[in-house]
Amino acid sequence: MPSFTLQQVAQHKSQNSCWVIIKNKVYDVTEFLPEHPGGAAIILKYGGRDATSAYEPIHPPDALDKNLPASKHLGYLNGESINILQQEKLKAKKTKDERRVELARQRMPPLSRILSLMDMENVARQVLSHKALAYYSSASDDEITNSENARAFTRFFFRARVMRAVAHCDPSTTILGFRSSIPVFVSGAALAKLGHPDGELNITRAACKEGIIQMISSNSSFSAADIMASADQSQTLFFQLYKHRDDDIAERRVREMENLGYKAIFLTVDAIVAGNRERDIRSPWILEEQESGPVYFASGTSDEPKDGVNVFGTAGALVANDDRDMTWEKTIPWLRSITKLPIVIKGIQCVEDAILAAEAKVDGILLSNHGARCSSLPPLEVLYSIRQQHPEIFDKLEDSLFSDPLAGGIRRGTDIIKAVCLGAKAVGLGRPFLYAQSAYGQSGVSKIIEILRREVVTAMRLVGASTIRDLRPEMVQRVDWHPHVHVKL
Amino acid sequence: MPSFTLQQVAQHKSQNSCWVIIKNKVYDVTEFLPEHPGGAAIILKYGGRDATSAYEPIHPPDALDKNLPASKHLGYLNGESINILQQEKLKAKKTKDERRVELARQRMPPLSRILSLMDMENVARQVLSHKALAYYSSASDDEITNSENARAFTRFFFRARVMRAVAHCDPSTTILGFRSSIPVFVSGAALAKLGHPDGELNITRAACKEGIIQMISSNSSFSAADIMASADQSQTLFFQLYKHRDDDIAERRVREMENLGYKAIFLTVDAIVAGNRERDIRSPWILEEQESGPVYFASGTSDEPKDGVNVFGTAGALVANDDRDMTWEKTIPWLRSITKLPIVIKGIQCVEDAILAAEAKVDGILLSNHGARCSSLPPLEVLYSIRQQHPEIFDKLEDSLFSDPLAGGIRRGTDIIKAVCLGAKAVGLGRPFLYAQSAYGQSGVSKIIEILRREVVTAMRLVGASTIRDLRPEMVQRVDWHPHVHVKL
Amino acid sequence: MPSFTLQQVAQHKSQNSCWVIIKNKVYDVTEFLPEHPGGAAIILKYGGRDATSAYEPIHPPDALDKNLPASKHLGYLNGESINILQQEKLKAKKTKDERRVELARQRMPPLSRILSLMDMENVARQVLSHKALAYYSSASDDEITNSENARAFTRFFFRARVMRAVAHCDPSTTILGFRSSIPVFVSGAALAKLGHPDGELNITRAACKEGIIQMISSNSSFSAADIMASADQSQTLFFQLYKHRDDDIAERRVREMENLGYKAIFLTVDAIVAGNRERDIRSPWILEEQESGPVYFASGTSDEPKDGVNVFGTAGALVANDDRDMTWEKTIPWLRSITKLPIVIKGIQCVEDAILAAEAKVDGILLSNHGARCSSLPPLEVLYSIRQQHPEIFDKLEDSLFSDPLAGGIRRGTDIIKAVCLGAKAVGLGRPFLYAQSAYGQSGVSKIIEILRREVVTAMRLVGASTIRDLRPEMVQRVDWHPHVHVKL
Amino acid sequence: MPSFTLQQVAQHKSQNSCWVIIKNKVYDVTEFLPEHPGGAAIILKYGGRDATSAYEPIHPPDALDKNLPASKHLGYLNGESINILQQEKLKAKKTKDERRVELARQRMPPLSRILSLMDMENVARQVLSHKALAYYSSASDDEITNSENARAFTRFFFRARVMRAVAHCDPSTTILGFRSSIPVFVSGAALAKLGHPDGELNITRAACKEGIIQMISSNSSFSAADIMASADQSQTLFFQLYKHRDDDIAERRVREMENLGYKAIFLTVDAIVAGNRERDIRSPWILEEQESGPVYFASGTSDEPKDGVNVFGTAGALVANDDRDMTWEKTIPWLRSITKLPIVIKGIQCVEDAILAAEAKVDGILLSNHGARCSSLPPLEVLYSIRQQHPEIFDKLEDSLFSDPLAGGIRRGTDIIKAVCLGAKAVGLGRPFLYAQSAYGQSGVSKIIEILRREVVTAMRLVGASTIRDLRPEMVQRVDWHPHVHVKL
Repeated sequence: MPSFTLQQVAQHKSQNSCWVIIKNKVYDVTEFLPEHPGGAAIILKYGGRDATSAYEPIHPPDALDKNLPASKHLGYLNGESINILQQEKLKAKKTKDERRVELARQRMPPLSRILSLMDMENVARQVLSHKALAYYSSASDDEITNSENARAFTRFFFRARVMRAVAHCDPSTTILGFRSSIPVFVSGAALAKLGHPDGELNITRAACKEGIIQMISSNSSFSAADIMASADQSQTLFFQLYKHRDDDIAERRVREMENLGYKAIFLTVDAIVAGNRERDIRSPWILEEQESGPVYFASGTSDEPKDGVNVFGTAGALVANDDRDMTWEKTIPWLRSITKLPIVIKGIQCVEDAILAAEAKVDGILLSNHGARCSSLPPLEVLYSIRQQHPEIFDKLEDSLFSDPLAGGIRRGTDIIKAVCLGAKAVGLGRPFLYAQSAYGQSGVSKIIEILRREVVTAMRLVGASTIRDLRPEMVQRVDWHPHVHVKL
Repeated sequence: MPSFTLQQVAQHKSQNSCWVIIKNKVYDVTEFLPEHPGGAAIILKYGGRDATSAYEPIHPPDALDKNLPASKHLGYLNGESINILQQEKLKAKKTKDERRVELARQRMPPLSRILSLMDMENVARQVLSHKALAYYSSASDDEITNSENARAFTRFFFRARVMRAVAHCDPSTTILGFRSSIPVFVSGAALAKLGHPDGELNITRAACKEGIIQMISSNSSFSAADIMASADQSQTLFFQLYKHRDDDIAERRVREMENLGYKAIFLTVDAIVAGNRERDIRSPWILEEQESGPVYFASGTSDEPKDGVNVFGTAGALVANDDRDMTWEKTIPWLRSITKLPIVIKGIQCVEDAILAAEAKVDGILLSNHGARCSSLPPLEVLYSIRQQHPEIFDKLEDSLFSDPLAGGIRRGTDIIKAVCLGAKAVGLGRPFLYAQSAYGQSGVSKIIEILRREVVTAMRLVGASTIRDLRPEMVQRVDWHPHVHVKL
Repeated sequence: MPSFTLQQVAQHKSQNSCWVIIKNKVYDVTEFLPEHPGGAAIILKYGGRDATSAYEPIHPPDALDKNLPASKHLGYLNGESINILQQEKLKAKKTKDERRVELARQRMPPLSRILSLMDMENVARQVLSHKALAYYSSASDDEITNSENARAFTRFFFRARVMRAVAHCDPSTTILGFRSSIPVFVSGAALAKLGHPDGELNITRAACKEGIIQMISSNSSFSAADIMASADQSQTLFFQLYKHRDDDIAERRVREMENLGYKAIFLTVDAIVAGNRERDIRSPWILEEQESGPVYFASGTSDEPKDGVNVFGTAGALVANDDRDMTWEKTIPWLRSITKLPIVIKGIQCVEDAILAAEAKVDGILLSNHGARCSSLPPLEVLYSIRQQHPEIFDKLEDSLFSDPLAGGIRRGTDIIKAVCLGAKAVGLGRPFLYAQSAYGQSGVSKIIEILRREVVTAMRLVGASTIRDLRPEMVQRVDWHPHVHVKL
Repeated sequence: MPSFTLQQVAQHKSQNSCWVIIKNKVYDVTEFLPEHPGGAAIILKYGGRDATSAYEPIHPPDALDKNLPASKHLGYLNGESINILQQEKLKAKKTKDERRVELARQRMPPLSRILSLMDMENVARQVLSHKALAYYSSASDDEITNSENARAFTRFFFRARVMRAVAHCDPSTTILGFRSSIPVFVSGAALAKLGHPDGELNITRAACKEGIIQMISSNSSFSAADIMASADQSQTLFFQLYKHRDDDIAERRVREMENLGYKAIFLTVDAIVAGNRERDIRSPWILEEQESGPVYFASGTSDEPKDGVNVFGTAGALVANDDRDMTWEKTIPWLRSITKLPIVIKGIQCVEDAILAAEAKVDGILLSNHGARCSSLPPLEVLYSIRQQHPEIFDKLEDSLFSDPLAGGIRRGTDIIKAVCLGAKAVGLGRPFLYAQSAYGQSGVSKIIEILRREVVTAMRLVGASTIRDLRPEMVQRVDWHPHVHVKL
């Protein structure tokens, strides 16, 4: 395989010929430009240069090899060039944001002082890079619905029962038949490497230790194989499928997961187009201002910057190849025909679709509006509506689950117990795990599971329940006023 | 025609003899004083002087010629006087507000960084003169209802449907039978020249390019003829009629519009008296303080300033001659008798009047409280009431429309889709177009239409609709709590 | 009559012998001490000294002569002593609060710049002394109910009607059969002299000029006779009766009013004990701190100050002798037996009592919770309940009125029209008149009546009413959400 | 008995041998370490040292003697060592928090300026140590429910009745048959010594003077015997029982109370696990930062501090031995069998349990969610639900009471009257008494009872009630809107 100098690579930075360097390897991505889910512009920005630092945190390690034919791997940098790149990296002045993060990392409190999921989030918000935080915390449009997901919980109060024996209290349950130490699972949180080099593996290892189940995302920054490799034999892992528009590619993906040992397929149906995450999109502009002060534009009018704008941000890139033509009639039978695994529909947003899901005989539904896109009803309200209008659905499905990935709605044991009282088998959390691993790695993840377990047990005792089965719909009351609470997200 | 010196003109500055200079022409406006819709005082303030800068942005170019007999055009300034005026203008120290605007114009971000209608409004608020912003953004009384128009949208959530084929998604529709690329039209936004020298023409040209329909206002700062002249042959334009109290004048106006090629008459019935726009009225006082510091009044008591106060502000002036005695029995048959164009009643504010409109066999109704005057119910609530109580109205009328001119209620594609789900054929926006053209001219207007198109398509896909017909009332749910959102206007 | 020196008076400053100087006259108030409605302590504070400045603004000029036997008027100060008092007054350093007020008076805007009742209140808040503002603006307890009175209006929206002839619009009406130019009257606002030397007379004169009716309070700072003397022959005045616990004294009062020419008796039943106006009580302490900096108390514990604390404040003093044992059975027949004037019960707070009032055949009721004491329902909600549950009451009574004295709930013409739509014959305002006369005297009062007239007419036209009779209950809708408005009081 | 030097004691500071000095006595607590309700870590922190200042405010004086066998009292410090300790104490630099408190104590206003319970709380918040305030004011989780307890009162308005004789007004009542001067009692507020050296005794003495009943807590900082000893013969005291998990210990406790003269047992059932009082737990960390500036942690990661963290805080320690297996079937008959005293269940949180309590034939129920733990419904809403759904419960029980200990919901006489109207026999307050005694000792407590009496009488008169029996459910209306009030806690 030939080797190249930086000068040689630098010749190829146009649409006609575009090379990039990733981990000292040289790739010709010219033909790939129009296919890149994130758009051509972002690649061209790094055309003829080293793109490792931009590429690495948001792509699985095997992404390039999968998407580029071997012939496009042209060769390696030569030794001198590698040396030069390293020198440049060392000499490169840290950005303001990098220095802020570095300082914040030194000031982190010891883990023993983290008393709640909010404490954990607060630390994470300090130590995450601006870009990572923008991705983790952004929600669609004006972030109204996002906050509504969380506020919904404040409208539900406990009708706590007293004089019941709760000295012994067991919070364990099953999800799709698999054991879980508390009614909580990890919902598909993606791009974990943005916050910590071990990324999703931190979560996998802690989930094993604490006895909970992890659902991994198609968009993980580690591959499904890597994650499974880091898991324990006995550990249960589910797979969140963003179905590819090409059925054959999708089928290969599902079979691969089944072979790897994943125990259920969560078909994602609420994210077929990306939400409008403006905070995420604005992130690079804000960093630019931080570095150089307010930006003045000579003409002050309509000059479109040369590198274009990816109006769908980091998240938009991830869904570009997803199937937008799924239907109950077509997609469920297809999926049944290629796998024996239990199927859960992730993204049910109203009672009508819960009924259709039950009729389609899937194994479970996961109520979610994918982090509050699009002014959809808060999942907890949908759960309550099913309970009020069609409680038989809870019997027809193996499991109904509740999830609020990325939305921050679930922050307390009491929140979890409310959802379980209303009929959810378990509750999936996403963001809290991303924050925890970003701040403290694996032990951060363990910490928040411990906090949740303590809070879940406390809540169960205070409402008068010693097992999960004791949690009943009549223990929760929806009130007609609105608690005066400013939900901070 | 005789020519005059500045000294000669300066003699005529009283109610007995009042001359003004507009674009170097000298007019005798003595007899017009009592008829001026904006009151005599404001003209007398400029009596004997050059009034061009105050006159131009808020009158159509042909206003003087239409309202003054030829004999009152006395002649021109002589060359030397014209010269003096120009010198004065050059030497005139810019006001603080003018300097602020100048600086803000230099700091405008490139158009590519405008991601939402709020971004556009934020830029416009920076670059508009104080006077223009006061007019564009003022609402009646305490601006409560205004904000309520916008908040109404937050009480309506989507019951989003999943597993529907939405890869292909077509947002186009018709309005009164005319094609529109999205269910949005330009609702009568007036005085566009206050924000940009090309004023309404910016909007007309962008509307053509983007395939949407513009309704122009009687109070446009360009004449209906000028606007039509700048339009494309194939382009659809509607006309918003503020009916003159004199039926003959009104008839001439309608016939003129029909001849010019306007395709529908929107009879405005919700603005027969001006609202109480205190922000607009206060605008000159605030500018005065900006220039000279806080104003002290020797007596500190009740000295009425000599030039009077126009308590109806810029907006008040515009409606002084409107017909305040319109009725269903009289006005609709009259209008039918003089035009073949479709008739839409603009300003329906309750179910009862929607019924009366249908009975009067008009072609459409436009729900609006004219920018939230007078504590009227939010139009979206009226739309919802019609849907709940009298859905047959939607069949009886060719089109029901929804409009929130000047009120800022509609800012997102999701808002538009909510209204369309409930039965609106299309949604009219006013302010966003004024802001867009003020900041970036025609390309600004194109930009926000593009943004709306992208947001409309995204919203359609996320609720599971691939055409406008798929948007159904049951996809929207009115909730009994109130999202915790501070609507900024 | 003997004359005294300051030294002689100064001997008498104890409970055993207490003299005070009022306008250079010397009074022996020893025996009056226990009877003083405001408590003995406040008189003893001025014992042996000149009390004019404290006495004057909160007592009618004839109060002393009425309450003290002639024998207790001991005589006058001698000339030298009078001279000394005047010198002292001149030399007295102004307090910080007096200087603040003086400066604020110089900075008042011209009356033409007052566009709303809120503008007027803002000016008044600048130019009122701390003590006067504390009295005018204080409300009971935590001032929650006060703000609720105002917020109630925001829950009622207009169902505005269009296409109705409103070019001619007549806002005049009658109250108890007497003509009023708008459906507004002056509700008993007391102690007007605290804000302006002409006090209530400012209001009387402006009411005459503007054609509205004034109800004067038992606690006016001018006597009922003085006020009537300043009124026009043709002018209508009502009298607000705080019934004395002694029926004979009360009877004399009523007969006096009838003889003076007052046209109706408003029996106040909602103020039998003073509310808990803590802001009013705290007023002197705050002034003390303003003068001398933060107060340190050596012991820091429980030393009660010698002069006691009047926990009922200025307002408390005024109700000390009121009858707390009034009943429907006893009091109404008694009042009927001593006067031919129409009787209105001021202070109805629920539907049940409105029914009892109608059964007792009084001429009218005035819905009020006396400035929002005691968490009572907002009067507008009570009005709405009567309309919903017992609309026949409106027929049985000559007039139902609506009042919000001191509570600030009514600030806009739209507010007035809402109450009239629901069945109120007219609306009584108190505070706005106090503020207006404090700031600009008589012309201030005229100004706010003009503003209200303009706003009332505008609101009538916009809802489609050309006379008061056109205002109907169905034009108002109570909504189930709460407008997001921070009512500032 | 032997005497020891400080050096000798200092040898014993490990889990193997742990001695502490309390008031110059030396104790061997090694074997007690695992049994300490507050955990071993906090004792080990003081191992080998003087622990008096940490021990004293949160333990009854007889706690050590009761819990340690006599043999573990090893002896006394020798004279020289005692001397050294005293010298150290004198030389010890005061902490920032101690200095802040000292200054605040000097600036306390005289008691006469305290006009409301909020005033009292504000003073107390200034003069309490950080630790004491954290304990007194902390509530569970995010302190949402806490604030909801208080906000519930704002949703209930009076339907005030007029024209009723209220000159004579008697606010006295009985509680479980015992006389009380107002419908208020002291609900079990614990650890009063944290705020004042005389602690609960301040409350006992003032309660006697003002004629109200005190319920004392198992966790008082004085023993039940001490408190009874300080009470008057005629005075009524109730006892709040936290039942020990060992029935025999619990029985001894109950019999002791009966013998001491307590008149009723309030069995606490709503605090079987401690809430999650994070503010309380964080208190020492915040003090640490105050002293030494922000804390940096070298590793910045997961080092657990050696002394552990008591995640249940001060409050958690107190419930560690409580019985978590109480049931209606077992516990009530047991309690009946060992005492003749009336039994009240403290902590009923829903209608269902109120019914069960009546069926179990207890003498009373106390509605409480123990200071708003766990998102339980606000007690006032539960009271209202009982009134609406099962009013017969009020007849079946001797007394229903209402309590909001530690939660701050009850702050005004109007609040008390609302609860009494709805059916509560009396209302228990906790925090206000803790604050009052902390700031002003016994006279502070008397002061707030006087304030409450004045406010109760005022509220009764204004709603038209002259005795407690006149207060009826129909005098209170629950409204469907939410007053706009920011409840400060």
